[in-house]
Amino acid sequence: MAYFDSASSAPLHPVARQALQASLDEGWADPARLHREGRRARLLLDAAREAAAEAVGCRPDELVFTPSGTRAVHSGVAGALAGRRRVGRHLVVSAVEHSCVLHAAAAHEADGGTVTEVPVDRAGRVEPDAYAAVLRDDTALACLQSANHEVGTEQPVARVAEACREAGVPLLVDAAQSLAWGPVRGDWSLLTASAHKWGGPAGVGLLVVRKGVRFAPKGPVDERESGRAAGFENIPAIVAAAASLRAVRTEAAAEGERLRGLVERIRTRVPEMVPDVEVVGDPVRRLPHVVTFSCLYVDGETLLHELDRLGFSVSSGSSCTSSTLTPSHVLRAMGVLSEGNVRVSLPAGTAEADVDRFLEVLPAAVKGIRERFGAPDHGDVAARDGGESLVVDTIGKRCPIPVIELAKVIDDVPVGGTVTVLSDDGAARLDIPAWCEMRGQEYVGERPADHGVAYVVRRVG
Amino acid sequence: MAYFDSASSAPLHPVARQALQASLDEGWADPARLHREGRRARLLLDAAREAAAEAVGCRPDELVFTPSGTRAVHSGVAGALAGRRRVGRHLVVSAVEHSCVLHAAAAHEADGGTVTEVPVDRAGRVEPDAYAAVLRDDTALACLQSANHEVGTEQPVARVAEACREAGVPLLVDAAQSLAWGPVRGDWSLLTASAHKWGGPAGVGLLVVRKGVRFAPKGPVDERESGRAAGFENIPAIVAAAASLRAVRTEAAAEGERLRGLVERIRTRVPEMVPDVEVVGDPVRRLPHVVTFSCLYVDGETLLHELDRLGFSVSSGSSCTSSTLTPSHVLRAMGVLSEGNVRVSLPAGTAEADVDRFLEVLPAAVKGIRERFGAPDHGDVAARDGGESLVVDTIGKRCPIPVIELAKVIDDVPVGGTVTVLSDDGAARLDIPAWCEMRGQEYVGERPADHGVAYVVRRVG
Repeated sequence: MAYFDSASSAPLHPVARQALQASLDEGWADPARLHREGRRARLLLDAAREAAAEAVGCRPDELVFTPSGTRAVHSGVAGALAGRRRVGRHLVVSAVEHSCVLHAAAAHEADGGTVTEVPVDRAGRVEPDAYAAVLRDDTALACLQSANHEVGTEQPVARVAEACREAGVPLLVDAAQSLAWGPVRGDWSLLTASAHKWGGPAGVGLLVVRKGVRFAPKGPVDERESGRAAGFENIPAIVAAAASLRAVRTEAAAEGERLRGLVERIRTRVPEMVPDVEVVGDPVRRLPHVVTFSCLYVDGETLLHELDRLGFSVSSGSSCTSSTLTPSHVLRAMGVLSEGNVRVSLPAGTAEADVDRFLEVLPAAVKGIRERFGAPDHGDVAARDGGESLVVDTIGKRCPIPVIELAKVIDDVPVGGTVTVLSDDGAARLDIPAWCEMRGQEYVGERPADHGVAYVVRRVG
Repeated sequence: MAYFDSASSAPLHPVARQALQASLDEGWADPARLHREGRRARLLLDAAREAAAEAVGCRPDELVFTPSGTRAVHSGVAGALAGRRRVGRHLVVSAVEHSCVLHAAAAHEADGGTVTEVPVDRAGRVEPDAYAAVLRDDTALACLQSANHEVGTEQPVARVAEACREAGVPLLVDAAQSLAWGPVRGDWSLLTASAHKWGGPAGVGLLVVRKGVRFAPKGPVDERESGRAAGFENIPAIVAAAASLRAVRTEAAAEGERLRGLVERIRTRVPEMVPDVEVVGDPVRRLPHVVTFSCLYVDGETLLHELDRLGFSVSSGSSCTSSTLTPSHVLRAMGVLSEGNVRVSLPAGTAEADVDRFLEVLPAAVKGIRERFGAPDHGDVAARDGGESLVVDTIGKRCPIPVIELAKVIDDVPVGGTVTVLSDDGAARLDIPAWCEMRGQEYVGERPADHGVAYVVRRVG
């Protein structure tokens, strides 16, 4: 069994487990109480705050513990927006933020605020000048992740932070995916993170608000955690979170280098061994442990189950693998293929042999699924003559069928001719253009059609 | 060492510890993921939900896990109010709810809603008819604790729930203090609780919303926990919470009876051994493990520290023991003495010998503090003649000084004469009338004075 989904949640680090168990005896009392049990709990909490602050690179009184990374983001965004409400109600986010940031932005919009989403390039990266260009006089807050959770691309946080400083706008950095590897560089104003992403326990997030940043906590008053995180503190988990962050940091340089080598192996070998694959994300400026690729003519959920059966736990940004039936907003914003999407995120300590075994089984797994779906076998496709224009009706069919049907008939039209795919599957909007990009065909555009959308593709080669 | 503050936070139950440790290996993955680690985590979460629902007496799909009892209350109040916004924006709470309920009410008021606080009697209990009388056509929600956290008084939840049903108003019951002892009877609509109060771990609250209750979660969208509790689930803690709730329930009848006996001993013996004490809270309809009393002429914080030094951890609702310098809102609403207030809340398993030792050391501890403050020694006070009226200036002096100065001079005025105490300490507003009640003197009233308030007392006996 190999668990390759540490970007969702990492297995508990041994240091986290030890610290958790050790502090169960000392950390259960209310740190607001004056008796000795309360004072002991307070000491543990204070020490954990110091350790976490040191790892983040901030002052202890700038850092509070929240019940999760999501809560840190929700509270951070709401508090910063409220603190600068007089400046304006404009919020800037990148298009590839974690859904908890985008949901906070949507809540702000529903409450009458305005939101600008900064687009990313095909590697998933924002362009600092483009980010700077959308900052306005009424911008209350800007958000940018340190690195993307689905494709591993690092964002130019330091340069965006500089632009924000110049514009007088605080920048909130969601550092959930990167904090294990090192502090976030640059002159950011707020920072959030989540302990279970670095091998700490569930139940602990970090919210850092730099001194001088205007911040007005939202929601009912609560005295705990400087009024920024309501509810009884989970001290054993907080102690475990801080201890494990220190521990992963001491291992970060060496382990990061090692995992980067394994990821590089996947990035290189997968396209060599599996036809019709797109490896996505920035090839260089990236997290050491995350690699993502998409396989044409494959259903993401089926591939995920097949890999699970073979002993590999991965995640997928394809549609059909979440309840919403829409592909990942990250892949959509990048404009890359979403079908057959696989994210491999290696936990610290991943054995090289497991990665090699994954590379061994993957090609047959993909091939088997493609055969089941009747996808075109690329080696065998011969040029055929056909009419000037063809219509393929895939209404009612889910990903990857629309793209498979398109691929089957593209050679039936002459160069210059078009194929129109009728589809009511949202993933087609992303995957048909992505297929054109991969295949060197021309994506003409879409228009409404009965029961769905007509996607038009011109055969170029 | 004896820890007598389980109403703040109970020591971890052995079953909670075992369950937590056992589920650290299985419960760290994301239960929303389809791979085996995710499915294992989901199974644990589902099983914990079933167990907790059974203990509460609800359906599993009516119960979600929140990061704390406070968050359960905040989300429950906000969601129920939003769900019935069209009905109106009137919220009813009792005056002795936990501060997290009152803070949620204050947030609702700040947001333009209206709030009615139902008063309590001197025992801390709401009167069901009085509660029913304030329900209106535009009442969106009513809140009532199952039992009070500071004085242990049980509330007439079933009768209030019935009145709410008749008025078509959902009732939210904060069951934080009572859930260990049994399910909440009556036809309530929403219920909240907190695991660390029953010996479960920190980081877990319960929010139950009965089917059919209109509920619209507030804040950014999040798919976890039916959209009612954002953020990654803390599954090991949730498993430990559910397991320990079952465990304490199997012990509840016997242990409750035993603790009730120990509490009764404190309730009886303290007034016998310590002069000028008021034992507060309902003598019969009460939690088995909580007893609260207030000592005239004693500073709560000093008494708490003295008891801590002697090996007893208690809490206090006196002013000066919190950052706000105001006495507990519960004692204030009850109209009882707040100075020298001590809450003893016995954790399960409390040794009888510890309670007896507490009763041994308490009288000398109180006496010592009174001597230090120069409080009147009651046995020695002889009737003295004096003027018709005396003014005692205690501006700048904190509790218990104003009451001590009053007690010192009351016999210097003749029967029918008055003493006017000038004070700028908020606790005096509560403690001077309470002293009159205890001493059989007449509290005339208050009026503004330079730098403070003038409290007027007439000597009756």
